[in-house]
Amino acid sequence: MKVTKEKATENRAALVRAAGRLFRERGIDGVGVAEISKKAGLTHGALYAQFPSKEALAAEAFASGLRPGLEKMTADRAGGSGSLTDFIDDYLSFGHRDNLAAGCPMSASASEVARQDKIVGERFAEGFEQIVALMERGLGASAVKADKRQRALAMMAAMVGGVGASRAVAKADPKLSNQILRAVRQIVGEIAGEGAS
Amino acid sequence: MKVTKEKATENRAALVRAAGRLFRERGIDGVGVAEISKKAGLTHGALYAQFPSKEALAAEAFASGLRPGLEKMTADRAGGSGSLTDFIDDYLSFGHRDNLAAGCPMSASASEVARQDKIVGERFAEGFEQIVALMERGLGASAVKADKRQRALAMMAAMVGGVGASRAVAKADPKLSNQILRAVRQIVGEIAGEGAS
Repeated sequence: MKVTKEKATENRAALVRAAGRLFRERGIDGVGVAEISKKAGLTHGALYAQFPSKEALAAEAFASGLRPGLEKMTADRAGGSGSLTDFIDDYLSFGHRDNLAAGCPMSASASEVARQDKIVGERFAEGFEQIVALMERGLGASAVKADKRQRALAMMAAMVGGVGASRAVAKADPKLSNQILRAVRQIVGEIAGEGAS
Repeated sequence: MKVTKEKATENRAALVRAAGRLFRERGIDGVGVAEISKKAGLTHGALYAQFPSKEALAAEAFASGLRPGLEKMTADRAGGSGSLTDFIDDYLSFGHRDNLAAGCPMSASASEVARQDKIVGERFAEGFEQIVALMERGLGASAVKADKRQRALAMMAAMVGGVGASRAVAKADPKLSNQILRAVRQIVGEIAGEGAS
């Protein structure tokens, strides 16, 4: 069946959306292409007409899932102060922890990406660099002596690990889950120089 | 076939060992019970004679994988000073990053545990608490103002996230991978109060 260019673009977006939610919710290895096609309301064939492999789709879904956070940070920055604090607050919120399917793909899939094709790691690396660069510009003076890039790299790693660990223990020990998020929030704020003059 | 008590204990250990390596290397959802049994030199039936489910085996493999790190930290502590620094150095080493199969199961599986049965999260929570308690006792005075438990919780989250992120980008951007580990090492050391009097 011949598909118009417009329809093809629509199909691609539907596949990326479905894949993004399913991969975050159930893991990249936990979901097959059949299920993704079905959720997007399409066939296997339509998926392979758009993406040469599941890995290629995973990479695009990963990049797409990072976009809202990056856009929000950039918009906030254009609009005025407070953007880094808002970003950290959102990232380490109970709401983000409890919303796997629509949250940051880095914390949803951190430990899985190493096992995927290089192309997925490339999207992770690009996203990590972009967020770190944006964070770096928002840093103030801090009691922590490391340079700004090191501070931003460590903050982002701590946030990815904080959300990951708090999700891992959420069912078994909700109190510990909350404590992890609050502790990372406090320390990341100190590294950023919040409250310092 | 009737199995002696001794043989049953041996089988159980072989299954836990095989599962521990495979789960870390390939992901909990990336490996099936058939492959685990085979790697342990046993049958499906022998696995289910020991564990009611794959989740029960995953939980025991997870706890077993945490033991060497906990034992090392406890032994170091008994033997004298320097244990927290050694633990952080080992955890954030290039060697640990590059050795998925024998490394810490928390960084190997952080983002996957939330999707597993509660029993796996219970082992994660217990291990996290035990390590945090040991770390807390090694903390010195630091420029970071949060209390000791918060500092230890955030340090462990940063270490799990640091190893996870550095592994995720290792194939695509080895330089960034090294930078993440070094930055987390530097900042975690500052949070611990290394070098402070």
